[in-house]
Amino acid sequence: MSALPADVCEFIASARLGRLATADGAGQPLVVPFCYAWDGEALVSAVDDKPKRAGDLKRVRNIRENPKVSVVIDHYDEDWRRLRWVIIQGLAEILTAGRDFAAGIDLLLSKYPQYRGMGLSRDKGTMIRVRPGKVLQWRYAS
Amino acid sequence: MSALPADVCEFIASARLGRLATADGAGQPLVVPFCYAWDGEALVSAVDDKPKRAGDLKRVRNIRENPKVSVVIDHYDEDWRRLRWVIIQGLAEILTAGRDFAAGIDLLLSKYPQYRGMGLSRDKGTMIRVRPGKVLQWRYAS
Repeated sequence: MSALPADVCEFIASARLGRLATADGAGQPLVVPFCYAWDGEALVSAVDDKPKRAGDLKRVRNIRENPKVSVVIDHYDEDWRRLRWVIIQGLAEILTAGRDFAAGIDLLLSKYPQYRGMGLSRDKGTMIRVRPGKVLQWRYAS
Repeated sequence: MSALPADVCEFIASARLGRLATADGAGQPLVVPFCYAWDGEALVSAVDDKPKRAGDLKRVRNIRENPKVSVVIDHYDEDWRRLRWVIIQGLAEILTAGRDFAAGIDLLLSKYPQYRGMGLSRDKGTMIRVRPGKVLQWRYAS
């Protein structure tokens, strides 16, 4: 797609958490919290080593069955005039190596110091990369 | 389903915003921010009169095509040891009248004073009601 509007890029890049929705082949959605970085063309997220439930890789299985995903990045405030969201409808791919994988790891380590010391590495791991198709945005007042 | 664990109920009831994922008949997910109240058996959410984009009722069309939904309610903290989420996999229905609709409106007005004066009323409107099937929960430390 063409470049995102600058204000959308800034909003996406500065937010700390999004939520990623996938759906399996039977149409059952799954939405999960989603730490991500923006690599200039796509959102990248590590399937990281935070202690996880056994079933937590369902998101990866879903993407392999059906790459269509949705991500929401929003700002909530009790003053609803400040509400804002950006929704990205896109296609996800699973990466385990390569240039985009390595660059994504660097971006995630830079954005989230929490990942340092958790074993996040260019050498191994699983990454979800979401290339935007349609981008929707909304602000209360707009 | 059987009653939710008390700590899950409390977490769900106290959070101010969840995110709702639906999927259309072609398997395209859509995730949106989701103000909701817990009515003791289900999550209720108004399709309210906040100024919306024209396409914003896509969530309602999706539910009519495919009632399978997913809701995440999470707590983010830069101290990742405090991360927590609850994910509800369930079935949604669209209500426009009836006992559950009226009770849901009352709960939403009670939880969100912002709705007062916005025209939210027992007399008309559209509500999404999500009955939990499977409930997943995760805490970093657990």
